[in-house]
Parts: sequence; C-alpha cells; structure tokens
Amino acid sequence: MNQNTREDTVLSAIEDRRERVNDAIDEELPMAEPERLYEASRYLLEAGGKRLRPTVSLLVAEALADVEPLSEPYDAFPALDGSTVDVMAAAVSIEVIQSFTLIHDDIMDDDDLRRGVPSVHREYDQETAILAGDTLYSKAFEIMLRTEADPSASLDAMDCLARTCTRICEGQSLDVDFETRPDVDTDEYLDMVERKTAVLYGAAASVPAIVVGADDDVVDALYRYGVKAGKAFQIQDDVLDLTVPSEQLGKQRGSDLVENKRTIITVHARDHGVDVDALVDADDPANVAEADIDAAVAELEDAGSIDYARDLAADLTEEAKAELDVLPDNEARYLLREIADYLIERGY
Amino acid sequence: MNQNTREDTVLSAIEDRRERVNDAIDEELPMAEPERLYEASRYLLEAGGKRLRPTVSLLVAEALADVEPLSEPYDAFPALDGSTVDVMAAAVSIEVIQSFTLIHDDIMDDDDLRRGVPSVHREYDQETAILAGDTLYSKAFEIMLRTEADPSASLDAMDCLARTCTRICEGQSLDVDFETRPDVDTDEYLDMVERKTAVLYGAAASVPAIVVGADDDVVDALYRYGVKAGKAFQIQDDVLDLTVPSEQLGKQRGSDLVENKRTIITVHARDHGVDVDALVDADDPANVAEADIDAAVAELEDAGSIDYARDLAADLTEEAKAELDVLPDNEARYLLREIADYLIERGY
Repeated sequence: MNQNTREDTVLSAIEDRRERVNDAIDEELPMAEPERLYEASRYLLEAGGKRLRPTVSLLVAEALADVEPLSEPYDAFPALDGSTVDVMAAAVSIEVIQSFTLIHDDIMDDDDLRRGVPSVHREYDQETAILAGDTLYSKAFEIMLRTEADPSASLDAMDCLARTCTRICEGQSLDVDFETRPDVDTDEYLDMVERKTAVLYGAAASVPAIVVGADDDVVDALYRYGVKAGKAFQIQDDVLDLTVPSEQLGKQRGSDLVENKRTIITVHARDHGVDVDALVDADDPANVAEADIDAAVAELEDAGSIDYARDLAADLTEEAKAELDVLPDNEARYLLREIADYLIERGY
Repeated sequence: MNQNTREDTVLSAIEDRRERVNDAIDEELPMAEPERLYEASRYLLEAGGKRLRPTVSLLVAEALADVEPLSEPYDAFPALDGSTVDVMAAAVSIEVIQSFTLIHDDIMDDDDLRRGVPSVHREYDQETAILAGDTLYSKAFEIMLRTEADPSASLDAMDCLARTCTRICEGQSLDVDFETRPDVDTDEYLDMVERKTAVLYGAAASVPAIVVGADDDVVDALYRYGVKAGKAFQIQDDVLDLTVPSEQLGKQRGSDLVENKRTIITVHARDHGVDVDALVDADDPANVAEADIDAAVAELEDAGSIDYARDLAADLTEEAKAELDVLPDNEARYLLREIADYLIERGY
C-alpha cells in the first residue's frame, strides 16, 4: 500500500471515532455553574483536536476484545470476563488530562495561540485558566471512575492516571529547567520528552487494557507501545520544524531555531560541536530568510543531527509496533500499527 | 470545664497527632527529582500548619473503631471488618490537597505571604508554583490509593476526593467572580464558602469513615459534620478580622474592610442598606486609624451584621456536633465535638 493510502486509512480510523469521542466529552463534561469556569474548561476541548489519544484507547479495547472495529458500543463494551465496561470514559479521561496540561503549559510558556484559537489565559484570564486546568484535572479522575470496570481494575486505572499526571508535571518542570541549562544531553532530553509527552500515550494505550481486564504483561506491553510511539511522535515534531516547507507547516520553518527552542536535534548538534546559538541570526520567525534556515539545516545535516533524530524516531516506532504482538491479530491491531507509523510519517 | 481548659484539650489532641502527620507527609511525599519541583511542592507543607484536617480524619477513624485515642498505629489501623487499613494515607492525602489549593490560590490572589513565609510563586516563580500545585494534586490521588481499604471503599474514597477537588475549584471561581459583582447575597456567599473551604473538611471527616468501612449513612453524617464545621470556621474568620485586637490577630484588625474584601458580614450589611465601600476611607491596612475601624465595626453592629455572622457560626457548629451522634460515645467523638467548638471559639 502506498503512503497516501495508508495515511488515509489512519485518518479514517481517527475520523470514524472523533464524533463519538466529541459526543462523549460533551456528556462527561457538561456545562455547569459557575458558567465561566466550565466554559473556560471546555473551551480548548471544543476548539478541536484530532483525538489521537482516545482513538488509540478505543482501538486497544477493540483489539483486545477481538471485535470488528466500530461494531460494539464503547460505553457498553464487552470486557474479557463477559461483563460490559465503558471504555469511552477511559478515553475521554485521557483527553481531558491532555487538555488540562495544554492550558497550564500555555500559561507557563505564555503562548498566545493553541489549535488556531487564543489560549485559555488569553481568551479568559490567568486566574480562570489556572482554575479551568485544575477543574479538568479532577474531572478526569471523576470520569475515569465511571468505566464500571471491576473495582480492582478501576483502582489500577486510577493509579495509572495519577502516576501519569505526576510524570507529566515532572517532564514539564524539566523542560522549564532546561531553558536555563546549556549542557542538556540527549539522554536527559529524551527522559524529559518521555515524561512530558510520551507517558500520556502510554496511559492512553494501557488504561483501556486495564479496564477490559487484560493481563498485566499485556497492559505493560501496551504501555510501552504508547510511550515509544509518543516519544517518536515528539522527536518527529522536531524534525518537521526543520524539513517541512513553511506553507505546509502552517508556521515559519525553523521557528524552533529562531526562537532558540531546544530540540533533540539541537541537543545532539551541540553535543557534536555545533554552535547552536549561532545557527540563525534572527530572533523573530517573521523576519528570517529561507536561505538562513537552509544554511542552518545544512549544518545540522552535516553534524548528523537530523539523521540521528529521524533514525531514533524510526527505531522507536518499530519497537512500539513490536509491542503490539501481545494483541490478537486483527483489524484494530493493524490500525494501531498504522497509527504508530502515521505519528512519524505525517507531513505536519 | 472553662474555655481555656477546653481549648487546651483540643490543642493537645492536635499536637499529639501533628508529629505523626508530619512524619507521614515526609514518607508519602519524599524528595524526588526534578529537585526544584519537589522542593517547591513540599515547601508549604514544611512551613507548618496546624494539621487540623488530618487531625479530624484520624479522630473519626478512632471514634468509629471505638479505640482509645492514639492506641493504634494509624498506618495499620483496625477497620470495621477486622482488616487493617492505612487511615494516615487518607489524612495526608487531604492535607496535600489543601496545600495544592493554597499554592494556586496565592498565585490567583497574588498573595506574597503564607504561614509566615513567602508564597510559593514568590519564593520560586510562577511556573514552578503552578507545577508544584499540579504535582501535589496527582500525588494526593496516588497517596489516597495507598489506604489498603477494600477496593470498592477505596474507589468511594477516590470519588469523594475527586468531587471535592472539583467543588473547591468551583468555589474559588465563584470567589474570583464575586470580586466584580456588587450584588452578591448571603446565600450565594455561603454557597461559595461551602465549596471553597467547607467541602474539604467534609472530605477530611468522611473519607476515613469510608476507608474503615462505615455504613453510607454514617459517612454522609460525617461529611455534613465536616461541611458545617468548615463553614462555621470560615464565617468565624470573618468575625475575628473585625473583633480581635490587631496584636492578637497578627495583622491589622479590619484589614478585610480596608482591602474591600467581601465577607459574610459585609454581604449581610450591604443587604441591609449599609454603604459598605464607604465604611473605611483608607485603602492600605498600614495607614488606618483604630478609631476608623471602631466606627465601622459600630455601624456593622448596628446593622446586626456581626451578630448575624456570630449566630450563624454558632448554629452551624451545633448542627455539626449533632451529626456526630452517629458515632459511638467515646473520647474521640468528644474531641471531634470540641474541635467544632474550637473552630469558632479560637481567638485568632
């Protein structure tokens, strides 16, 4: 199958579930009062998003139950012991956590835009944004309690969610710390990426397995699938910023370089003797010449840093896919493999 | 018994448990890396605090188990079904949530001091303070999962914790909204106080009952005990600001009036025709004459607003104590009654 067809397959799988996920978000996180707080809490979730993590969650459940994709209702889904569980609640809980982290990260990074709309602290104010994030945080735990899984499985799901949130905070803290540390090495950087971004993919893949009653070794393998695919996804983000034309990227190519944002590529390059701060002279992505970006990319290519990142993402993706061997051989497993590929093959 | 002796009894009960609570906090929330994040997360917890909420939790467990206070280890405590549970984990979880809310509230209110030390966003920075709060949030859930209670009881404890956190966010949001709304009435104000402050006392009193395996009606009564006592506590705070000499209060008497902070007293007074904004002319507590405060207090007394608050706190306290009738008649129950009284009889 050629790449476009494969990408279409993945995008259909996501598209097929997005509407259901959106409906479930509406249901699990209804408007309430104080209205302004709940509006702000729902604002980013309503602004869109691919729902990649919930899609992974729902596909894991379908693969484990070995059912035809989309054939069973997600809120009354066949668990492995013959009972029914609400795997959609688990999927929504993960997406709600994702939204909470975006809101608080945008405050910390003072980012003005998110998903094409103003960030929550810009659209509302900082107090409301802090509280909206805090509200989503506890709501995610409330929602995760609604899976109707076996009580001890439900406790395991809560434990995974709580530990994942702690790790995300640690990752964001490392990311903030790194801004003032020139000597970060690739291991430290990848550890940060694992905590800040990848563990939530790990939770998205493993929590539905816990909820349907899979064995511990299956749960663990799915967690590793998510973490590895999530890391590859983040590394690929760094590659795309340098290699995809600005028109396609929707922002200036090389903006990470211009803004002196540390990426796996610049960390690797610095380790290999490149004076990263001198790569691009401009400090505003609006005023940088394509030729300057080209020259910087050429220097990073010479240092082997772009290939290093590409290879690392590809290796992690292969490792992620291999973890899926614990699943029955079915359509949902195929789609989970394709999603891992998509995360590093997507053009933007 | 005279009031001083009764207050000594309560203070001893708190003092007797504080060291154990502090040790348990150290154990449940150890230093980890990133160091700066964990230092910031532990900073307020290490700065002190009476540990009132954990004391309530531990006494509830002792009252229900009908044991001599301090006779059983809190981390291997006799549950009602003969198993042992870690009620200290529940107590610590509640205190950790309290600390998270203080950190985020101080950012929102831009308060410089807390417990006599700089607030976390002053001692560290805003990013670290947001993350420290977020870390405590998930840690509280992790800790609540360590009670070793029966799985379905453990899920109920998690549910109570999550709902309580949501309510606290709603309460803080209402408090922020009220700042720009002149027409808040006493019912709205008391609803805000219930969510922002009182529900965490409700959780402190009811979660240990869930953990030791008490019946639902007992759990519900203890929740109401905590909520009512917590509301009375907050109302009394507003009374003390006007009625206790500055030396004893540790800050300028009437500072709420000077800073135009809404309290149950000013809300009541406005409802009864007092021009609250005109009560005190100064807008800095450092530059206000005692005579001006005296005049303002006299006007609030004439409007019946101070008596209204005092009576309300006293009524809520009586109602709170009556809820304790579900407990066996023992020393721990006696202390829980005394704590409710102490919350409105304390001088500062």
